[in-house]
Amino acid sequence: MLNKIFKAIEESDKIVIMRHVSPDLDALGSQFGLKRAIEVKFPEKTVLAVGEKSEGLSWLGELDEIDDTTFDDALIVALDTANLDRLSLYKEETTRNRKLLAKIDHHPDNEPFGDLSYVDTNASSVSEIIAQFIFDYLEMDASSASSLYAGIVGDTGRFLFNSVTEHTFEIAARLKSYGVETFEINQRISEIDIKIAKFYGYIYDNLDIDETGVSHVVVTQEAMAQFGISYEETNAIMGIFGTIKQIKTWAVFIEKSEKQGGGFRARIRSKRIAINQVAMRHSGGGHPFASGANAKDLEEINEIVEELKIVVKEG
Amino acid sequence: MLNKIFKAIEESDKIVIMRHVSPDLDALGSQFGLKRAIEVKFPEKTVLAVGEKSEGLSWLGELDEIDDTTFDDALIVALDTANLDRLSLYKEETTRNRKLLAKIDHHPDNEPFGDLSYVDTNASSVSEIIAQFIFDYLEMDASSASSLYAGIVGDTGRFLFNSVTEHTFEIAARLKSYGVETFEINQRISEIDIKIAKFYGYIYDNLDIDETGVSHVVVTQEAMAQFGISYEETNAIMGIFGTIKQIKTWAVFIEKSEKQGGGFRARIRSKRIAINQVAMRHSGGGHPFASGANAKDLEEINEIVEELKIVVKEG
Repeated sequence: MLNKIFKAIEESDKIVIMRHVSPDLDALGSQFGLKRAIEVKFPEKTVLAVGEKSEGLSWLGELDEIDDTTFDDALIVALDTANLDRLSLYKEETTRNRKLLAKIDHHPDNEPFGDLSYVDTNASSVSEIIAQFIFDYLEMDASSASSLYAGIVGDTGRFLFNSVTEHTFEIAARLKSYGVETFEINQRISEIDIKIAKFYGYIYDNLDIDETGVSHVVVTQEAMAQFGISYEETNAIMGIFGTIKQIKTWAVFIEKSEKQGGGFRARIRSKRIAINQVAMRHSGGGHPFASGANAKDLEEINEIVEELKIVVKEG
Repeated sequence: MLNKIFKAIEESDKIVIMRHVSPDLDALGSQFGLKRAIEVKFPEKTVLAVGEKSEGLSWLGELDEIDDTTFDDALIVALDTANLDRLSLYKEETTRNRKLLAKIDHHPDNEPFGDLSYVDTNASSVSEIIAQFIFDYLEMDASSASSLYAGIVGDTGRFLFNSVTEHTFEIAARLKSYGVETFEINQRISEIDIKIAKFYGYIYDNLDIDETGVSHVVVTQEAMAQFGISYEETNAIMGIFGTIKQIKTWAVFIEKSEKQGGGFRARIRSKRIAINQVAMRHSGGGHPFASGANAKDLEEINEIVEELKIVVKEG
């Protein structure tokens, strides 16, 4: 399939590379990496990287503006996006005159789309897939290699997660050989703002662990205001708990604003014991070790914590 | 030289593998990885891993006991140890009847020792060197590969530092292919005790940053007692500061006990501006970006902080 996608690139004068909304390092890294590699191999083609901006990740590269004719006769390559609804800036009406739509992804292909589609759920990241694609069909340089390395680091937690394979390290080795400044990129990725650091302090101070190994913390609107932290920024603390030896399962309850409907959003995580059935009982769900749920008040928070204790005791 | 060291292994009935005092992941990982690989290739030989124990790292493997005859006729292989003084459990008098002493290291070879010596300062870790040595001359299996992977992760901060090269990733790929449970190992390495986590909270709460980007924190004997933290365990906090965007240079002052002579030990770090000249002015020294010094009282702490501010302003 990848050879067919390369053929489509070869036969198109205009290629528009897209990816999902709220882009992360893998989405942007694969997007800029592929754009650059097509430009190097085919300088005469128009190659655009399209999608909403991400303030925090603007150092990865500059996105192209779109107008009414951007997608006409274009090959669209959609990266890291499981379903069309999540493809940033994609609209049925503006893309009607496109030439072809190709999908390259590593998420489960539950809602297939595209005239051409390549999905490898064993890949740690789309950046890993695109790197191999470039080595096989296009031309790698330091700029592409740096973008793709950032994408791999982003989606693997810097070679931390289970998704890392022999092939991931092989690709990292080949990328490094193009002169990627891995230390500088890692530094950039792992850096946090002082206000987040102070919020970490608050979480470390306030998290409790019960005798079964269940930890939870409640983050009120007041605390978020005190530290100047947005709802999205509270995501940054989820990794703290997993590094603590005594914690088996943890839940963070973020108080929602009145605009968000009030109550608490629960983010539930676990090292080895499945917790998604607890999430499902509280208007939520998700993966066995990472679920989301909702609690309408402190009473339901206590219920969720008690149910987690039972699951851990039985597990 | 490595072929000569292999020849020496081949020609010895007894091989004693040693490494430095206060062993870290690289010291122990390379030690157990090499021991295992010799045993797999040469089941008839006696292979011992010798050195003081490390409580926190006992999961890496079991060390062998020594007696008066342990070193007689033995090939000693000293790993990850720059000078003989730091070789754990090594004594001139007990090793007098050894066959040969071989050194394999990646530190600058300022005090050479050994009948055979291989030093590669470009290697990220001794585990990286030993992995290549095993691929070339011995036999790799899952157990060796896991030990060596842990060693590489330990000495590179999980592929973070500047010391990581294309070869480091290539070795990681080959080790992974032996079925190394990289996620489990990473998890184990990065896990901290809840008392350290609570101490992290204290540090995040108390660290300040001035307008130049200098951050410092004073850890008193009282605070260490409150969190149940030993002098050695205060090392765990040094990485916190480097992840905060606004911090350029930082100093942690640990109050010494009366037994330790009182006053404060200063650990000074910097992202990009050399700070060792400040350390040298306060009975210390070290690398440009990582130095140690001493302050006799709060007044000298203030002096050090003020001098760091000047260095940062000028840098």
